[in-house]
Amino acid sequence: MLFQVEMIVKLPPDMPAEQAADIKAKEKVYAQELQRQGKWRHLWRVAGSYANVSIFDVTDNAELQDLISSLPLFPYMDIQVKPLCRHPSSIHENDA
Amino acid sequence: MLFQVEMIVKLPPDMPAEQAADIKAKEKVYAQELQRQGKWRHLWRVAGSYANVSIFDVTDNAELQDLISSLPLFPYMDIQVKPLCRHPSSIHENDA
Amino acid sequence: MLFQVEMIVKLPPDMPAEQAADIKAKEKVYAQELQRQGKWRHLWRVAGSYANVSIFDVTDNAELQDLISSLPLFPYMDIQVKPLCRHPSSIHENDA
Amino acid sequence: MLFQVEMIVKLPPDMPAEQAADIKAKEKVYAQELQRQGKWRHLWRVAGSYANVSIFDVTDNAELQDLISSLPLFPYMDIQVKPLCRHPSSIHENDA
Amino acid sequence: MLFQVEMIVKLPPDMPAEQAADIKAKEKVYAQELQRQGKWRHLWRVAGSYANVSIFDVTDNAELQDLISSLPLFPYMDIQVKPLCRHPSSIHENDA
Amino acid sequence: MLFQVEMIVKLPPDMPAEQAADIKAKEKVYAQELQRQGKWRHLWRVAGSYANVSIFDVTDNAELQDLISSLPLFPYMDIQVKPLCRHPSSIHENDA
Amino acid sequence: MLFQVEMIVKLPPDMPAEQAADIKAKEKVYAQELQRQGKWRHLWRVAGSYANVSIFDVTDNAELQDLISSLPLFPYMDIQVKPLCRHPSSIHENDA
Amino acid sequence: MLFQVEMIVKLPPDMPAEQAADIKAKEKVYAQELQRQGKWRHLWRVAGSYANVSIFDVTDNAELQDLISSLPLFPYMDIQVKPLCRHPSSIHENDA
Amino acid sequence: MLFQVEMIVKLPPDMPAEQAADIKAKEKVYAQELQRQGKWRHLWRVAGSYANVSIFDVTDNAELQDLISSLPLFPYMDIQVKPLCRHPSSIHENDA
Amino acid sequence: MLFQVEMIVKLPPDMPAEQAADIKAKEKVYAQELQRQGKWRHLWRVAGSYANVSIFDVTDNAELQDLISSLPLFPYMDIQVKPLCRHPSSIHENDA
Repeated sequence: MLFQVEMIVKLPPDMPAEQAADIKAKEKVYAQELQRQGKWRHLWRVAGSYANVSIFDVTDNAELQDLISSLPLFPYMDIQVKPLCRHPSSIHENDA
Repeated sequence: MLFQVEMIVKLPPDMPAEQAADIKAKEKVYAQELQRQGKWRHLWRVAGSYANVSIFDVTDNAELQDLISSLPLFPYMDIQVKPLCRHPSSIHENDA
Repeated sequence: MLFQVEMIVKLPPDMPAEQAADIKAKEKVYAQELQRQGKWRHLWRVAGSYANVSIFDVTDNAELQDLISSLPLFPYMDIQVKPLCRHPSSIHENDA
Repeated sequence: MLFQVEMIVKLPPDMPAEQAADIKAKEKVYAQELQRQGKWRHLWRVAGSYANVSIFDVTDNAELQDLISSLPLFPYMDIQVKPLCRHPSSIHENDA
Repeated sequence: MLFQVEMIVKLPPDMPAEQAADIKAKEKVYAQELQRQGKWRHLWRVAGSYANVSIFDVTDNAELQDLISSLPLFPYMDIQVKPLCRHPSSIHENDA
Repeated sequence: MLFQVEMIVKLPPDMPAEQAADIKAKEKVYAQELQRQGKWRHLWRVAGSYANVSIFDVTDNAELQDLISSLPLFPYMDIQVKPLCRHPSSIHENDA
Repeated sequence: MLFQVEMIVKLPPDMPAEQAADIKAKEKVYAQELQRQGKWRHLWRVAGSYANVSIFDVTDNAELQDLISSLPLFPYMDIQVKPLCRHPSSIHENDA
Repeated sequence: MLFQVEMIVKLPPDMPAEQAADIKAKEKVYAQELQRQGKWRHLWRVAGSYANVSIFDVTDNAELQDLISSLPLFPYMDIQVKPLCRHPSSIHENDA
Repeated sequence: MLFQVEMIVKLPPDMPAEQAADIKAKEKVYAQELQRQGKWRHLWRVAGSYANVSIFDVTDNAELQDLISSLPLFPYMDIQVKPLCRHPSSIHENDA
Repeated sequence: MLFQVEMIVKLPPDMPAEQAADIKAKEKVYAQELQRQGKWRHLWRVAGSYANVSIFDVTDNAELQDLISSLPLFPYMDIQVKPLCRHPSSIHENDA
């Protein structure tokens, strides 16, 4: 089951550089692990911003909540979720 | 080059049913043709709405404008565009 | 799987009274049938408005889309969807 | 008398971890006590967020204010309230 | 139990003048009857607008819905409702 | 001359508890004094929030500014003002 | 007593040209009469728009409502009102 | 003197096709004439929309108002104006 | 050439009182000097707020930027600018 | 390929003056270097603000992201991006 997730990162300007680097490194490891598992199906940077557009593929709403609330950057992001399903005009069988 | 495009369809409530059906049929043909060409890479319905989330893969901004402004439903949609690029944490080579 | 759905009804002021009455009657039949099936778990009127707050219980996003887009009032409503899941502080086993 | 209440938690990023944990623990005890009393009828997590959707069942507006302003997380939440009543299409006698 | 209700009137520009006059006359009769009953406690014009700020005194949310949805101008108004209760600094015993 | 005033209190989360208590105590004294003078005609809590809805009765705009800008909580509030006047359907002589 | 009033004109696109011309002519006569009386102290066009910024000088809120609601274009405008008073740094005695 | 002007075209869906074509043809002639005069310095399409971003070079605010309010599409556009001036980091002498 | 300028002052709540008083004193001197020069033509307080509405009379956009960016309170204000010009219904020759 | 980019600078009020001056100096060097390369085609100050309107000329979305995310002020700006293309009414060959 697919969800579009938009994340805008807003780190506090006074966060020490090492702490920020540490959180970002953990975020990268976590994001790549979820991509390898197929849970985080797509991950794009929105050009000109510190934000991403993502497609998650999860079993249900509860798993979506588990995955997103475990993001190392979770406390520092504005996040918007849209449930997706197959579009009647889509020609891709697996886009749902 | 990828763009996220969100389209919300707002048909006038007094449009005759045949006219609406005709426009939607043309939209479907057009959308499937663009998908087959690889220009309209993803097309999802936003669940609970008359809206979609799409990923376009175009040569440049001009082609994006050409494709979107030729949509049969173009005069009846609110459309939002976000330029995308490869995310540094993405593991997908072709996601850009 | 639960979703909160908020619906605000906006009938065109020039819709003939009979047509409006007909659509509303069909909406009521449909809404009560979905409630009996357990798909539409809760349905409340927002006091002082022509709007409702609802909780849907569906198998997945696709079923949510099917049920909502089949509402007789669907073309005349602003609809907002929020995916829900069990809250860690909830004491209700079936609230998810 | 029912109210829908949406709460978005916004803890200051520089709040010490122990203080945050302490407030959350108190919030959980309080939320579960109100649920057992039947005052906090439903409590759902909004998937992909640090937010909840709740249904309160109170005697009047004053009791709603008492319960919500006593939440340990009250100073750190954006809260929206909607008064609810029975929907004419509802088949549930106690949903009001 | 008190509620603040703000109503902004938006008559369609093409409504015939007689029809508009008729609805407004009925609205006035209804509003004055509710004021005499003490249900519509205060009614003020917002200066420079076709809008009002009102205070309703009702038994519960259901009565609020009954009174507001029966307004002759109801289909033509944007309405916002806020539940009120006694303020701890108020010196007026009956302001709640 | 009447004005509706809505005040939302937003104390900085790191304000020391004593300082907050001191400001609130001064606010209460001031609010009650203005109520006794008839300047602050109504004061209601918006249920489920740290906000109030008020009706001020002042000589002119300048007095409104004097009274509001002297509120001890003034630097910590979002404030919205609406000028009011007698509604043609009001039955209350003194509601203006 | 001064008020800033911003008016944005939104004539329905299907209003007959003569009717529009007639309303605008009446608006001009009315606006110039109020300016001569000193009630409409300033009237500026917002460059690049069909809107104006105005300063009204009235006895009280009721007079403001009378003057604005009598504008021939009143049913076709979005109007925003801000009460003004003397600024402590102003050097103009009559700017209040 | 430069101004950025953003224009979003919103033609009524029921405007006859010939009328729309006529207005657009006049708009094009007018826009190209102003470009030749150097008044309309830049004109870009916003990709994926029926909107443009423009830079006007005018003598003063009054001329800006004259040029924009004379646009054949003026009654059918949402228009936003921003006054521009030379940026201290600009290396272009004529960008002001 | 006239511009309407709205300024909302938002001093950080933790700014030391002396620093705030110093900035405000400098702002007053500067504002009065500009008024004497005729550059800052009108300055009003918005009643019930820490905000003002102003009319600037400047040679061009560049001078507007110079004057506003030199305000001692500039870093602590939300500022909105609207270019003004003579309204065709204005009877005041110098209101442009 | 052109993009309109709007940047609003929001430096934290408690940033030390030297640090702010240092970042701004680096920003200026960087902005002028990109202008000399032709990547940052236009750069204007929005009069009355700490903001700019810019036109970037880049190879693709990825280069836009590289250039913008490398701005020394990037962490302290609200940034909005619009993809541009040639307008059918433009007479400038190189405006695309």
